[in-house]
Amino acid sequence: MIGPSLVRRERKPEGTRVEVRPGLALGGRAFVVMAGPCAVEDGVQMAQAAAAVTQAGCPVLRGGAYKPRTSPYAFQGLGAAGVRMLVDAAARHGLATVSEILEPADELDGVAILQVGARNMHNSSLLKALARQRRPVLLKRGLSATFEEWLLAAEYLLAGGNDQVILCERGIRTFETATRNTLDLASVVLAKQLTHLPVVVDPSHASGRRELVIPLSLAAAAAGA
Amino acid sequence: MIGPSLVRRERKPEGTRVEVRPGLALGGRAFVVMAGPCAVEDGVQMAQAAAAVTQAGCPVLRGGAYKPRTSPYAFQGLGAAGVRMLVDAAARHGLATVSEILEPADELDGVAILQVGARNMHNSSLLKALARQRRPVLLKRGLSATFEEWLLAAEYLLAGGNDQVILCERGIRTFETATRNTLDLASVVLAKQLTHLPVVVDPSHASGRRELVIPLSLAAAAAGA
Amino acid sequence: MIGPSLVRRERKPEGTRVEVRPGLALGGRAFVVMAGPCAVEDGVQMAQAAAAVTQAGCPVLRGGAYKPRTSPYAFQGLGAAGVRMLVDAAARHGLATVSEILEPADELDGVAILQVGARNMHNSSLLKALARQRRPVLLKRGLSATFEEWLLAAEYLLAGGNDQVILCERGIRTFETATRNTLDLASVVLAKQLTHLPVVVDPSHASGRRELVIPLSLAAAAAGA
Amino acid sequence: MIGPSLVRRERKPEGTRVEVRPGLALGGRAFVVMAGPCAVEDGVQMAQAAAAVTQAGCPVLRGGAYKPRTSPYAFQGLGAAGVRMLVDAAARHGLATVSEILEPADELDGVAILQVGARNMHNSSLLKALARQRRPVLLKRGLSATFEEWLLAAEYLLAGGNDQVILCERGIRTFETATRNTLDLASVVLAKQLTHLPVVVDPSHASGRRELVIPLSLAAAAAGA
Repeated sequence: MIGPSLVRRERKPEGTRVEVRPGLALGGRAFVVMAGPCAVEDGVQMAQAAAAVTQAGCPVLRGGAYKPRTSPYAFQGLGAAGVRMLVDAAARHGLATVSEILEPADELDGVAILQVGARNMHNSSLLKALARQRRPVLLKRGLSATFEEWLLAAEYLLAGGNDQVILCERGIRTFETATRNTLDLASVVLAKQLTHLPVVVDPSHASGRRELVIPLSLAAAAAGA
Repeated sequence: MIGPSLVRRERKPEGTRVEVRPGLALGGRAFVVMAGPCAVEDGVQMAQAAAAVTQAGCPVLRGGAYKPRTSPYAFQGLGAAGVRMLVDAAARHGLATVSEILEPADELDGVAILQVGARNMHNSSLLKALARQRRPVLLKRGLSATFEEWLLAAEYLLAGGNDQVILCERGIRTFETATRNTLDLASVVLAKQLTHLPVVVDPSHASGRRELVIPLSLAAAAAGA
Repeated sequence: MIGPSLVRRERKPEGTRVEVRPGLALGGRAFVVMAGPCAVEDGVQMAQAAAAVTQAGCPVLRGGAYKPRTSPYAFQGLGAAGVRMLVDAAARHGLATVSEILEPADELDGVAILQVGARNMHNSSLLKALARQRRPVLLKRGLSATFEEWLLAAEYLLAGGNDQVILCERGIRTFETATRNTLDLASVVLAKQLTHLPVVVDPSHASGRRELVIPLSLAAAAAGA
Repeated sequence: MIGPSLVRRERKPEGTRVEVRPGLALGGRAFVVMAGPCAVEDGVQMAQAAAAVTQAGCPVLRGGAYKPRTSPYAFQGLGAAGVRMLVDAAARHGLATVSEILEPADELDGVAILQVGARNMHNSSLLKALARQRRPVLLKRGLSATFEEWLLAAEYLLAGGNDQVILCERGIRTFETATRNTLDLASVVLAKQLTHLPVVVDPSHASGRRELVIPLSLAAAAAGA
């Protein structure tokens, strides 16, 4: 198998900056925090979230409108209407936005960063379509994707012409049940060392425990995320 | 989370029969073997494969035309042209066919069983689209999908109106490296006991070693697959 | 690392027979079932177990007297007194016995097969001591031991002069929670193909579910255990 | 199962200090680094190691004399002679020492901290013996031990009367092969929050890659180790 190539740091030693809004980039010196609810539920919720996120000094509001649920009976998201709530709430505070895309036809107008979720990291059809769109993509590592497979998923985007890629480690699936997933910070360090892409960490999904979010965020920052 | 419901054996104690061709069904008394190459490469290859599969007494020819590769540099399949080679070769021997679908727009005319691959088991958009198509679906278990998640993926199909579902265990991802994946026969037994769906096993992908295919097939048969 | 050598089938193509009693051997043509309680609790229990095991046609009675518990607050076994209950109950029915040894000083007089449990597979001190004893050893695979590590643990016994070794697959630790462990039958097949040692399977510990024991036993038999 | 109890933070909110030498304790405010070779090989090597460790400002010298090897053909350590080399080299620089113990009879006179290795974390016989010795114990987490099992192993020591216990996370076994093990920093945070014991991290064994040791050490420090 030909390994990842375009993502390698040698290709771009200075590192890739992904500009998500004029004056706001990932991959630069700033430590950028993205925050917000898992799912967009209604306009009031998003207005409150946007205010809280702004007050905490975070420049990016997250919120899912297309939700890839394990169960067909779980809330599947508000779709295009949810996207508008997210974008409107963010606009009022000058925040950038990030939201998940499940298929190319999903309407995500005005969203700054399109998130490819862990369940879709291996979805090469979606990756190829996003490569053509040239919009910033937050690529979450798959539940049980190896480090190599994660880089190869990013390679799909770069090979298709889109280098606006942010890698996101969100914990891998292991035997451990004390936390929802096992945050793999070594992969974050490796991704920083071996690729030229910005790397972020999702401490909430990785741990599934509120009391771990701050310590793991500090650890991620210390590791170079 | 609401668990799997429509797939439960109590819903259909006699079991679901998935008819893939007049006179050929999965879920009945017959032990059905599906065989063929991983990827369709050309017409000669498929003609030879169809002849060999027929001679071995297998009624179903497999062959992938849309390939979900880990690397963008790997052969991505022949697409619609490959599907025609598969269907033509099978037709000459009266074989049924199975081939993978990656997105709803993929052209798979004449293919008896649409395969959802391990990488797409969590792709709820694809599952919803296939639920509407009402064609037989072979649902492979995800690389690191729990037993519960596998049943919930099947539940997406049934909840959307398609009960022509065949479950396929193909090994899970573990620390073990002596085999490509770890075949989880206990899940096959559980799937037979707890659901009304036919269950098949893919011993080739599960082990990645030629010399294990026959012993594991016998074990799968003994376990009730 | 030098890999396993003395255990390889080429060393003894005809296979190793481990005689546990005159007329009873593992590694021959017979399919030998070992049964009995996890822990020896009292004489009445063992008398009943021995009778039931005999009636079922099993020639070997198991029962643990030295128990390697995860919690210090769990029952740690009856020790030497438990061993006597096991051996006495077995003797009355002409059964052979198998019981776990935790350290070389444990008294296991009269026990036919000394079991090295999964938690001690990596305990090289214990393996070296058992190599010197030249009594039959049932070597359970560690919770997360690779196939290679399992063979190397057996190699400790053979390198120390004891070839009376029976390999026992009992499930490995994975992310799956529907079963207690994941029975890895592919490793059983590989162990039969690559080594000259007898291989048995523990379907109870592997699955932790009563309704899976018989189907998995059949599967193990079909796989060659 | 009765869970861990004596290790819980509520039992000792101020935390346990493990004094390894007058003036040097783990569990206090100081961030203590332990360094040295995996195995003691000869006196010259240890003299050099002790000098380098001293120069780097680390107060504890490590070196294994009893080695629990996966293969019987690997170097098994120098035993008591190796321990003397370690202790002598450390004494010349005023360093404390840490070295692994495999069985109660191992001679480790003068060693400040007895290490229970990952392969022996589940060895309850060894834990019981060390509980009686009342010497400081560095308890490494097992290769595939859950967080709960790790605490229960510590509980064996406390229940037996020895509260001089230091927990050591050294990576768990997962499917990932880019690093030797997967460092689980979330468990370090949890161990700090839920127990009163000092917690250290072994970044070398966890990653198996030299270039990851410093970033992971910083991450561990940020996480509270």
